[in-house]
Order: sequence, then structure tokens, then C-alpha cells
Amino acid sequence: MSELLDKVKEKKATICILGLGRVGLPLASVFASKGIDVVGIDINEERLTSIRSGKCPFYDPILQENMDISCSSGKLTVESDLGKIKDRIDVIIVTVGTPTTLGNSVDYSQVYTALEEVCKVDLRNKIVVMRSTLPPRTTTDIIIPFIENKTGLIAGSDFHIAVCPERILEGQAVKEIQELPEIIGGINQISNDIITEVFRWINPNKKFSYTTTTGAELAKLFANIYRYIGFALSNEFAIWAEMFGENASNIINISNYEYPRSNIPKPGFAGGPCLSKDGLFLDNNTTFSSIVSTAWKVNESIPQHVINKIREVEGNLFGRNIGILGISFKSNSDDLRNSPSVKLVELLKAAGAIIKIHDPFVKDTLSLNEVLGSSDIIILATNHSKFKDIRKEIQDAGPKLIYDVWNLYDKDDFTSSKYLKLGMDSNF
Amino acid sequence: MSELLDKVKEKKATICILGLGRVGLPLASVFASKGIDVVGIDINEERLTSIRSGKCPFYDPILQENMDISCSSGKLTVESDLGKIKDRIDVIIVTVGTPTTLGNSVDYSQVYTALEEVCKVDLRNKIVVMRSTLPPRTTTDIIIPFIENKTGLIAGSDFHIAVCPERILEGQAVKEIQELPEIIGGINQISNDIITEVFRWINPNKKFSYTTTTGAELAKLFANIYRYIGFALSNEFAIWAEMFGENASNIINISNYEYPRSNIPKPGFAGGPCLSKDGLFLDNNTTFSSIVSTAWKVNESIPQHVINKIREVEGNLFGRNIGILGISFKSNSDDLRNSPSVKLVELLKAAGAIIKIHDPFVKDTLSLNEVLGSSDIIILATNHSKFKDIRKEIQDAGPKLIYDVWNLYDKDDFTSSKYLKLGMDSNF
Repeated sequence: MSELLDKVKEKKATICILGLGRVGLPLASVFASKGIDVVGIDINEERLTSIRSGKCPFYDPILQENMDISCSSGKLTVESDLGKIKDRIDVIIVTVGTPTTLGNSVDYSQVYTALEEVCKVDLRNKIVVMRSTLPPRTTTDIIIPFIENKTGLIAGSDFHIAVCPERILEGQAVKEIQELPEIIGGINQISNDIITEVFRWINPNKKFSYTTTTGAELAKLFANIYRYIGFALSNEFAIWAEMFGENASNIINISNYEYPRSNIPKPGFAGGPCLSKDGLFLDNNTTFSSIVSTAWKVNESIPQHVINKIREVEGNLFGRNIGILGISFKSNSDDLRNSPSVKLVELLKAAGAIIKIHDPFVKDTLSLNEVLGSSDIIILATNHSKFKDIRKEIQDAGPKLIYDVWNLYDKDDFTSSKYLKLGMDSNF
Repeated sequence: MSELLDKVKEKKATICILGLGRVGLPLASVFASKGIDVVGIDINEERLTSIRSGKCPFYDPILQENMDISCSSGKLTVESDLGKIKDRIDVIIVTVGTPTTLGNSVDYSQVYTALEEVCKVDLRNKIVVMRSTLPPRTTTDIIIPFIENKTGLIAGSDFHIAVCPERILEGQAVKEIQELPEIIGGINQISNDIITEVFRWINPNKKFSYTTTTGAELAKLFANIYRYIGFALSNEFAIWAEMFGENASNIINISNYEYPRSNIPKPGFAGGPCLSKDGLFLDNNTTFSSIVSTAWKVNESIPQHVINKIREVEGNLFGRNIGILGISFKSNSDDLRNSPSVKLVELLKAAGAIIKIHDPFVKDTLSLNEVLGSSDIIILATNHSKFKDIRKEIQDAGPKLIYDVWNLYDKDDFTSSKYLKLGMDSNF
């Protein structure tokens, strides 16, 4: 059983990465840029074509630079079917998405598809690494039984398996893959040893924490939930500040200022494919209202709160022309998954408003001028850095009202428009 | 109206501090140790006698050192009646407690008593500083109207007023009074200027943030609530870890380890006179379940959770001998206010258990040997540093079960007893 460990130590193993999205592609590219043979697998042909031509299929300039190295070296190849390359791979890393269903349960469909692929391989003396975010006990209760039933092999004696969760910040993937410590939850010591050596290929000084498979699943969830609750609490503070006629952002700054026990984030939309759903993976195990579910309720309500506040000033929004600046879930990104800005648009459309969207990072959106030129109400919905510099353009367009979700502007920036922001009420 | 400012700048003003508890006494002593004339007022004669003899009436060795200076210099004197010294004071700082009632509303009785005293003074050209923790808008809606009605004077023109909330850590008061930035919410610019100069007496390099009176009230609450929610989330994680048979403390360590976006605290009892009630000051303004109220529910449930877990192993606790190690609300302190350990004792007594308590910081508790010698079950309830060194004594006493709220020990420390801890289940 230590044959694979020797192969990994000698840097002779080949890695297969299942899923070439925002988690898998950076990981594949970084491994390949370190001289490791990597085969990426994805079922999306458009994505494969893009990668084959050396082009990152989503917005990430740093990853693009890394792909320039990894693709031109020939170390990174891609396939749509794992069966084609099943005889030459040693380490299988699963990075497919685990979104939620409409009913907020975990959607394992991508995981099941990936496992079907995994089981095409003769797994003896190979390692399967789960890097997707998983509800606790998924590996012990679903992944391992699935593979064992399908292959007749026994985890821990015939093949190795470990949970090693992804924890990168989108846009910082290449840097963080190299720098962040890895959490390793192997089924046994040899699984831990193998995946440790695999990640040392990326950075010989990488740091590691070891736990159980379930511990590794939980550790990932804990970190994301901690962050998400901070955003929710900040949004709750914003609502209270509005109730008391105060400016939440100012008060939060003051609370934090050189105070060792306070590090409150800024209010704003909190969503995206990780934070908003990771809490549900724990919360779905609880019949009562937890902090996580309360926080989720707060964060998910903010788009409607924005609409309610605009209605207080402008009345019914049916038939009104509303311009949305920013539609992605986070700044300087084109990722729309679980974006509160998308939810805002859906709610506004349902309310009968006529919506025009500008996002400099998202294809098929309108130009800034098109949006400003035809909107009565402007909502700054995503905090792209570029938006800090468009005060004058907004002011010149002269909308009736500007709603600033991100506290990017000041009331004084707009002399001829009403100005509202999240966490500050009665300001006109 | 700038007469007082000049007097303060020349260090000729006298400070009166209303309330000589764990907030007021350190503040009075630090001002006096800097050579300022300070008169402290309190209605508790026992406390006054203790201070007159130079002895700190509660456990705080660093404050005792400071009092050795401030009391012997004659700069710190104390009185039970503000009327006696009303003609020679310039700056009145109110530090009385704002506990909650049995129904979890704010109890303003000490504030009203203090304001009655304040109104004995001719407040013209004087400043009133609210340092007590207050629900938002207390100063504008209650304090100022009270003083104006009682004295016929107008705030901001006849007298100055500011909110300047206390934010110290108990046991670190003397150090933090000198080092922490002050949040100043004055009714006007001159009030801000005066209280700024007053605090520069303590530290000429002190830093300041300025806001409204309500903003200063909120800033204090935000910081404490942020901390309290962190503890609650950690406790929620502990319960989840127990559900999944994992060790919460280990997983939290792994989540935090060199990860820039995670700083989860350790699970344990969270209470005390500030954290557990400050959230209610905001939450009482909301008709729905907020993050604050959910967090409060989690933290307040932990003592009962401990009992439930012990019952799962030991059965009914009626008539059982249970020893409690630590009764104060925080480590290395004798403060019992809102202590979850006290709540634990009350719940156990209500369940019919026979309770013996040892706390090295709290008078009138039993010795360690007395408690260990007569208890079947030992609960480590407060994380006093000294308790880290008593594993052997506990092991030698041979209780049937040890419950460790603070993850101070390991299972392997106790070979002949069952061992449970918060955040780790099924461990025997």
C-alpha cells in the first residue's frame, strides 16, 4: 500500500482533477505549472475548448497568467471522459460543485456524476481526494459506500481516500493554493501521508492540519460560516442603525478602531456560491432556528430591505426605470452564482420595475451610459472597485434617487438626487 | 461656555465619579494617580470604607497597585452624598450599572438614582459624562430630558453632556483605561473638546473617535455583541461537533490555523454583566428573532446542555453529590454577575442535586479538597488558570464522571473516571 507514496515522493504520479470550475481549474493549473502531469476532466465542452486554447473561461487575470505557463508546457491536458485516461492516473481530486436545490437541500448530482467517473478507474493503490465542500459525514456515509459498492474494493485497504477542502478566495486562487495551510482528513495515516506529499509539490513549505474525514468537512464549513455570520451581524447592525437614525458604517468603524476585541465587517450584500449555502449544510441537521439560519434569513432579506426603503421614498415601483450597477456576487468578479444582486433584480422585476444592468465584468450587460441614461433610480449593487470613480457620471445623469448598498459614496456627492445607503436612513 | 474647557486644559478641574464599581473605581483611581482631584460617590458604605482604607473591594491586583498610589496621594477621596461636595466639582462621570430586570428589560434604577444626585449640582458650565452602557437613545430621550426638567437648564447651552462608553476588560482595567481609544458622543463640539481634554490627562497620546450621543451608545453595544455572537457561534459549533462525534475544539483550531478569514473563539460558558445583556438592549427593540436573540438563546442554554449530557451518562441527578470548580463568570475573577456557572448551580439544585463549590477567587466557597472529597461528579465550570494544574488531584479523588466545560483537560488525564467535555461527545 505504500507504492503510491513512493511514486508521489518521486514526483512520478499523475493527477486527475474532476471538475474544472473556479476550484478545480486553478488547482489543476498550479500543479501543472510546478511540472506535474495533470489531466483535467469536465463535461462542459465549451469550457474544455477554452482551456485547450489556453484561455481561462471565467474572469481571473492571475489564473490566466498561470495558465499561460501550465498550458504551453503541455503539463495540463483536459478530457471529457475519465475512461480515456484511466490507466495513467494515480491521484484523483474531486472538485465538482455542491450547490443547493430549490428546497435548500444539498444537490449531490455533480458528486454522483463524478463518482461514476471515478469508478471507471481501477482504484487499487490510488487515492481519491474530496476537495468539494460537503455536509458533515458525506465521505463516510455516501462517498465511501458508493465507491465500495460499485468497485468491490475496500477503502483504506484497497484504495486511499481523504477529504482536503478547498478554502480559496475567488480571484486569489493561484496565490492561496500555494500559501494556505491544507486541512487533511484521511481515512488512515497512509492516505494523510500521500496527500501531504502531493501538496508539497506545490509548496515544499506548505503547512498541514490533520483530522478525520468528517472533521475536515466540518472545519471548512466552520470557517465559511464564521465569516458569513459576521456579514449577517453587520447587516443586522445596519438595520438597527437605520432604526435609530444613525450611520452604521461610521459606528462600525468607531467600534473597531484600535479595539482589540472588535472586528465587525462592513454591511452589504452577502451571498455567493459558498457562504450562503455552507451554513445550510449544518443547519439542515437541526430542527430549531440556529444562529446560522437566523443569519441566513438576515442576509437573504437585504435585497428586499433595499426595495422596501426605496419604496418608502419613491412609492410603488411598478413601471419604474431602475438601473443596477453590478450584478456579480462579489467585487471585481464575473461570478453570478447566488448573487444577492441577481436576487435584487428578480425581486424588482417581480414588482413590475423595468431593469437595466451594467456590470463591467459580466458579458451581455449594458454600458454604464446606457444604464445611467435611462434610469430614474440607480442601485449600486456590487462593490466593484471601478464604481468608486463614477460619482460624477451618476451625478451628471441626475437620477431621482441613488441607493448605495456598499457605502461607496457620500450624500454630498449627489446634490441633485436623493441618496440612501444601507445602514443609514432619513438622510435627505 | 468655554470657561470649563480652559479649566480642564489647565488641569484645574475636579472630577466626580458616580458609582465606584468595577468601571468607576478603576477610572477614579487612574485619574487620581495622574494627579487629578477625584471625588468618588457610592451609596454602598462597605465599599466606601474599603476604599477609604486603600483596599480594592473586589479582586483586581493591578488596580490594587494603582490604588496604593492614588489613595496615599490624597487625590482620590470618596463620599456617599454628592451634595456635600457639589460646589467643588466640574466634571461628573456616571458609571453606575445598567443591569436587566427579571423580565430582561433594562433596569434604569441606578441611573435614575445617579441623575438625582447629579441634579444636586449647579450644572451651569459643567459637563455630565455618561460612561454606563446604555440602550440606544437613552441619553437623548431620558438623560437629557430628566436633567433639563429637574434643573430648568438647557443641555448644550447651560451645561455640557457627552456619552463616552466604558469598554475595558475586567482585570485589565488600569491598563486599558490608559491605552484604549475613547469613543466620544458629545451633544456639541465644546462637549467633545472638554471630554477629550479630560481623557488626555490620563494619556496625552490617547486616540479618540467622535460621533453622536446615540452613535456612542450603539458603538459600545456593537463591539460587545460582536464578541458575544462569536462565543455563541462557537457554542453552536460545539453542539454540532457533538452530533457528529467530533471534537469541536480541535476542528476550530484547524479552521483558524493560519487562515486569514477565520478567528473562531473557543466554546465555553459565555455570560457576565456586559456581554449577555448588552445584546438585549438592541434586541428589545425588535419584534422578530434576531441573530442577537438566537445567540443569547444558545449561550444561555449551555448550562442546561451540560446537565443534559451528564444525565445521558449518569441518569437522574436527584440526590447526587456534584462538585463545581469555579463559580465566577470569567477566569481569574471573583465576579459572579450573570455567571453561567451560577446558573448551572441553580439548575442542578432545582434538579435535586447536592452541590459543593470551590472557587479560589470567591470568598465563602469550599476548599478544593472538601469538594473533591465529597463529589461523585465534578464539573469544571470556570476556566481559572490554576485549574490547569489540578488534574492529579481530580484523578486521585476518583469521581465517577468529570465534565470539562473549557477543554482544559484530556480524556487521558483520567484513567478511572468517565470524561466528557463541551464540544466532544461519545468519548468513553
